[in-house]
Amino acid sequence: MKTRVYVTLKGGVLDPQGKAIHHALGSLGFSGVNDVRAGKLIELDHDDGVSDAEIEAMCKKLLANTVIENFRIERA
Amino acid sequence: MKTRVYVTLKGGVLDPQGKAIHHALGSLGFSGVNDVRAGKLIELDHDDGVSDAEIEAMCKKLLANTVIENFRIERA
Repeated sequence: MKTRVYVTLKGGVLDPQGKAIHHALGSLGFSGVNDVRAGKLIELDHDDGVSDAEIEAMCKKLLANTVIENFRIERA
Repeated sequence: MKTRVYVTLKGGVLDPQGKAIHHALGSLGFSGVNDVRAGKLIELDHDDGVSDAEIEAMCKKLLANTVIENFRIERA
């Protein structure tokens, strides 16, 4: 079974990686981009028996820094 | 307007980050996880006039290394 976890920075948290991408897009001549936010996509391949609660615990303990990041779990 | 770009490693490409996450999950006592693949989620905030072709060009030129990565564009 597959589950995807999307980890994104909380609003208001400075995103230097996103800023760097935004700047690079401008340098490459792309216009019309107002902001860029970079995050993580983690794909877990796991046994059917792994519960939502366990995946949430994985997110809180390891996959996301819940002080500055949000996470969203999507069963594939 | 918002567009999300999901960048993931192509199958068969070694994913050391995913391996590290997988190992760490095991050390934290989580069982049942067979494999972990790490990727990027890039959120673009842009003018309505930015076309799909332009976003695809951004992916090919900067956001993804198309030799080892796939990308998927999702208009939010």
